[in-house]
Amino acid sequence: MALLDSLHWRYATKSYTAETIAQDQLEFILEAIRLAPSSSGLQPYTVFVIRDPALRARLRPLCYDQAQITQASHLLVFAAWDAYTAERINGFFQFSNDIRQLPGSVTDDYRLSLLDSFGAMSQAQQTAHAAKQCYIALGFGLLAAAEARIDASPMEGFDNQAVDELLQLPEQGLHSAVLLALGHRDSDNDWLVGMKKVRRDKAQLFIELP
Amino acid sequence: MALLDSLHWRYATKSYTAETIAQDQLEFILEAIRLAPSSSGLQPYTVFVIRDPALRARLRPLCYDQAQITQASHLLVFAAWDAYTAERINGFFQFSNDIRQLPGSVTDDYRLSLLDSFGAMSQAQQTAHAAKQCYIALGFGLLAAAEARIDASPMEGFDNQAVDELLQLPEQGLHSAVLLALGHRDSDNDWLVGMKKVRRDKAQLFIELP
Repeated sequence: MALLDSLHWRYATKSYTAETIAQDQLEFILEAIRLAPSSSGLQPYTVFVIRDPALRARLRPLCYDQAQITQASHLLVFAAWDAYTAERINGFFQFSNDIRQLPGSVTDDYRLSLLDSFGAMSQAQQTAHAAKQCYIALGFGLLAAAEARIDASPMEGFDNQAVDELLQLPEQGLHSAVLLALGHRDSDNDWLVGMKKVRRDKAQLFIELP
Repeated sequence: MALLDSLHWRYATKSYTAETIAQDQLEFILEAIRLAPSSSGLQPYTVFVIRDPALRARLRPLCYDQAQITQASHLLVFAAWDAYTAERINGFFQFSNDIRQLPGSVTDDYRLSLLDSFGAMSQAQQTAHAAKQCYIALGFGLLAAAEARIDASPMEGFDNQAVDELLQLPEQGLHSAVLLALGHRDSDNDWLVGMKKVRRDKAQLFIELP
């Protein structure tokens, strides 16, 4: 199927041309990210969509000087919730019940059980839980980009604390989880573009218990 | 685009029919998972593909008795590496260099830097890092399932330690990270199927820094 062609086409792009991606393609990728599922549907993150070259020039040294930060057309920063606060959880149920036209009484048991279970987790556990949800959305963004033939680089190598400070994330109860650069590959200058994709064979990656 | 239609079609299925999913559709979903990217390409996980009804009957009470565990056609268990051992990292580079026909000397600096950086992480940090990579693969699996019109339920609510013991994961240096049930929705008996999808609006989820 076409999806698998897209997955063979994509790779972790190391060098980008100066071309800006089309607005409708960016919107398509963001919409796939928006539709990604998350634990209890809470979407415990905000995604920063950064075009501003000056800001990306300040981010680059905080990201081991990786060229994609400034070369790419756009940079997404997936910023996860520091904590599942009662305000955030209650706010979600209010929002969800409004959309579904449900009285709060229908979801109160579930809401209270979430308040309990997240309340029993340490701050570090809540932070880690929210960050993992970002990776589902990252996966959706990567796959949508490939379908639209937009190149992308998922990036974990950066100084989280410095990025948090530059983007003023702590003030918003957020922390940087993972980055995604988007743009068009510069095939003439990318050492990785011609390399074979390396993935474990099916027999190595999967264990079937029939 | 068709991808967004698929994302509107999918939902976290709560009730499944007894129908088994077609082998070619299962293979398609597994192939998308196999092609998912991961940090440094290490694919730090094994995915268990469980059809066995008897084993799923034993898993269900460890998963808060959620019906999808036994009702669905198949259950995937994403089991992440406990640790990025030198054996695993060196084994990956050997494998990758064989495929790309590169001498080890070309990748030695990178390999040694990975041994250093993972070696500087605590066991808990390594475990969490590997688990996050599973969530990218989970995202790919979810999206591929939706494209194939196979229903799916991502599941985090289970007793990780009990699942690990039942599947003998510690002996393999693995721990359960997240589950994915696959099958066909039982629309007549699923309270969620008719509910409106709840996602934050674009203006709430994204912050654009142009």
